[in-house]
Amino acid sequence: MNAMEHGRRRFLKRGAALAGLAVGGIRSTSGQTTLASITPEVRPRDSFAYGERSRFENSVRTPRPGDSGPGSRWTPLQDLVGIITPSALHFITGTGQGSALPDIDIRQHRLLIHGLVDRPLMFALEELKRLPSVSRIHFLECASNSYLWLEDRKAETVQETHGRTSCSEWTGVPLSVLLKEAGVQKEASWLVAEGAETGKQTKSIPLEKAMEDVLVAYGQNGEALRPAQGYPLRLVVPGWEGINNVKWLRRIKVVDQPYMTRKESAQYANIGLDGKARWFQFQTGPKSVITFPSGGQRLPSRGFYEITGLAWSGAGAIRRVEVSTDGGRSWKDAELQEPVLRKAHTRFRFAWNWDGAEAVLQSRCTDELGTMQPTLAELSSFRGVTPNYWLSAKKAIHRFNAIQPWRITREGSVHNAMFS
Amino acid sequence: MNAMEHGRRRFLKRGAALAGLAVGGIRSTSGQTTLASITPEVRPRDSFAYGERSRFENSVRTPRPGDSGPGSRWTPLQDLVGIITPSALHFITGTGQGSALPDIDIRQHRLLIHGLVDRPLMFALEELKRLPSVSRIHFLECASNSYLWLEDRKAETVQETHGRTSCSEWTGVPLSVLLKEAGVQKEASWLVAEGAETGKQTKSIPLEKAMEDVLVAYGQNGEALRPAQGYPLRLVVPGWEGINNVKWLRRIKVVDQPYMTRKESAQYANIGLDGKARWFQFQTGPKSVITFPSGGQRLPSRGFYEITGLAWSGAGAIRRVEVSTDGGRSWKDAELQEPVLRKAHTRFRFAWNWDGAEAVLQSRCTDELGTMQPTLAELSSFRGVTPNYWLSAKKAIHRFNAIQPWRITREGSVHNAMFS
Repeated sequence: MNAMEHGRRRFLKRGAALAGLAVGGIRSTSGQTTLASITPEVRPRDSFAYGERSRFENSVRTPRPGDSGPGSRWTPLQDLVGIITPSALHFITGTGQGSALPDIDIRQHRLLIHGLVDRPLMFALEELKRLPSVSRIHFLECASNSYLWLEDRKAETVQETHGRTSCSEWTGVPLSVLLKEAGVQKEASWLVAEGAETGKQTKSIPLEKAMEDVLVAYGQNGEALRPAQGYPLRLVVPGWEGINNVKWLRRIKVVDQPYMTRKESAQYANIGLDGKARWFQFQTGPKSVITFPSGGQRLPSRGFYEITGLAWSGAGAIRRVEVSTDGGRSWKDAELQEPVLRKAHTRFRFAWNWDGAEAVLQSRCTDELGTMQPTLAELSSFRGVTPNYWLSAKKAIHRFNAIQPWRITREGSVHNAMFS
Repeated sequence: MNAMEHGRRRFLKRGAALAGLAVGGIRSTSGQTTLASITPEVRPRDSFAYGERSRFENSVRTPRPGDSGPGSRWTPLQDLVGIITPSALHFITGTGQGSALPDIDIRQHRLLIHGLVDRPLMFALEELKRLPSVSRIHFLECASNSYLWLEDRKAETVQETHGRTSCSEWTGVPLSVLLKEAGVQKEASWLVAEGAETGKQTKSIPLEKAMEDVLVAYGQNGEALRPAQGYPLRLVVPGWEGINNVKWLRRIKVVDQPYMTRKESAQYANIGLDGKARWFQFQTGPKSVITFPSGGQRLPSRGFYEITGLAWSGAGAIRRVEVSTDGGRSWKDAELQEPVLRKAHTRFRFAWNWDGAEAVLQSRCTDELGTMQPTLAELSSFRGVTPNYWLSAKKAIHRFNAIQPWRITREGSVHNAMFS
């Protein structure tokens, strides 16, 4: 702690732009003053005070099929509209502590920034909230979203196939603001972020990305983060696979190399048929999926339907979504719902008259770099595997972004046609 | 009902683009087939299935001061970030049935469109959901937002002064799609929308606005509307005062004049000092307010703060927000958070170093038409009243959009300085 105390003194001397805040920070960490008094008094809860949904609505996050544990819950994309995922239905992977979510007291929580910096810093939440902030709508997606993970049966619904992506309006402080304030040293090139949960999830992130668009987020869809999404503080690492978005964030250490911590090294490489592991491919997509009609649903009659779904890419904005209703023989442009935002879900719509015959529906997207979502055959070829490989794999497969086909029978029932 | 039956037959004959849907519609209203089977089975609720907020978060909607009834609850703008208002905290005015919210079974609810149309139509919810839809982020604001309504004391917090505006991502069918399908007759010029609650709220809306951008909305922030916001169906009338956005929508009658129904004629005219009532001024804003720091909060120390707030206008997009920290002597541009959307809340931010002296903070906005938010003196002059008029008025005052000043004492406490 000597280095940190030293750092604080230097911070005071330098009189940086945010010095007033830093004074607050030091007071707070010594326990003398907090901004907690800004929070209004506790009032009793009732449905008028904080509204609940209708008792006729019962859409829920579901666990990985065959897994009754609470660690992983998937978003019911088939029930959602627009691009905002309700916070209550944002997917969860990894609570870090078994059957309970971390129950963190916002008044006690601190964020420490240290390592290869000139001035180690520690912040209480209310101090962070005084800093320059931004709000951005971004998706988060688990790296293994869309991989089947089902040994006994095929994933059937879009919740099972794609329910590990969600999209929120995140609000927080740009990590670049904090790092500039701390003074990153010349030899620094990575950081390691650590959560406060029992498992202390850690993740190495390149400094370049940290300075580009990473947020230290405290807000989600207008209010505080939900406990399952890292309350009171998480990283949001736009467009990069979910594990980077460290929840219950309590520590950022600036370092000179990736730390290859347990979870990231054990689970997050892609191992090809050649036995080689591919590291540090963090960016997801481009990817899209039709959410209506989708597996497990039923069309009650022939006639008009609006096909709709979501598209997203870690590379930036979605430029185009095409829909095929004839198994991929022909494709037509879908309409993109404005605003089309970078590294966010984009809602697409496509008018369709179902004539009652069997049909296979699928969507494919193209992002701002011109990259088009691949077919299963193209993805297999790119990864150096056969299409059957995916079915037989018994481990997590990352960044599986093949085009998702849904087959509609003449009776109107909808089925997953990825491997049929 | 003869006319309606006749209308249905004509619809079938014409073979319009949406004819397939209309068949579903007729089936459904006769009770033989619904799309309810699309909804997945009910699953038990738990915090992993549908997440709750942290027990350390207690921001709530509050009733109008002095009014313990549930009919009106205001949004805690001082606690919110970004532009999305959590559905649980969206303001409420008027449940239409005293202490309980309408508890409508989505499977039973129908929307009837009739009056001066060629083909009266009736829709179940799942039928509406098959139609072409859009999602748009829009604010809703009660016409009397920011009027004091407090006879015994001054409104102190931003929740009390401005808590009757909220902003959501709404999803639904453009009303123009439904009206075109029904075939609006030549002599039609208005419509009357009616809710299903006990009070059967009705509102006259010009046909021109209905065809422009009105939505028949079933979705709010990704999921179904909350009961307090009109579940399962409401009008969203972008940029127009709240009463137009009829909740629990069950009937739209196309007519040839405004109906001047009880509530709209009794409460929604502006009566000036000259005794003349001004009707049909539906558009709100431009308006802005600083939400931090705001009345009732306290700054714990001098130093850096990010001033932030919201701006909105019924005329379209916000083009500029300026902030004054010296009681209006000088103004500087605030930063507008992207995306800046038409008829939506726009978040603004302004970096500020508080030197510990008394200060008066205020914001003013300018919309895409070039209209600037007025000072209290300008608004008074425009309305033909004296500034003292507002304090003595004992009735609802609509579209009060004067610049809101907050005074900060040397101790750091923040107070409403509108009339001081």
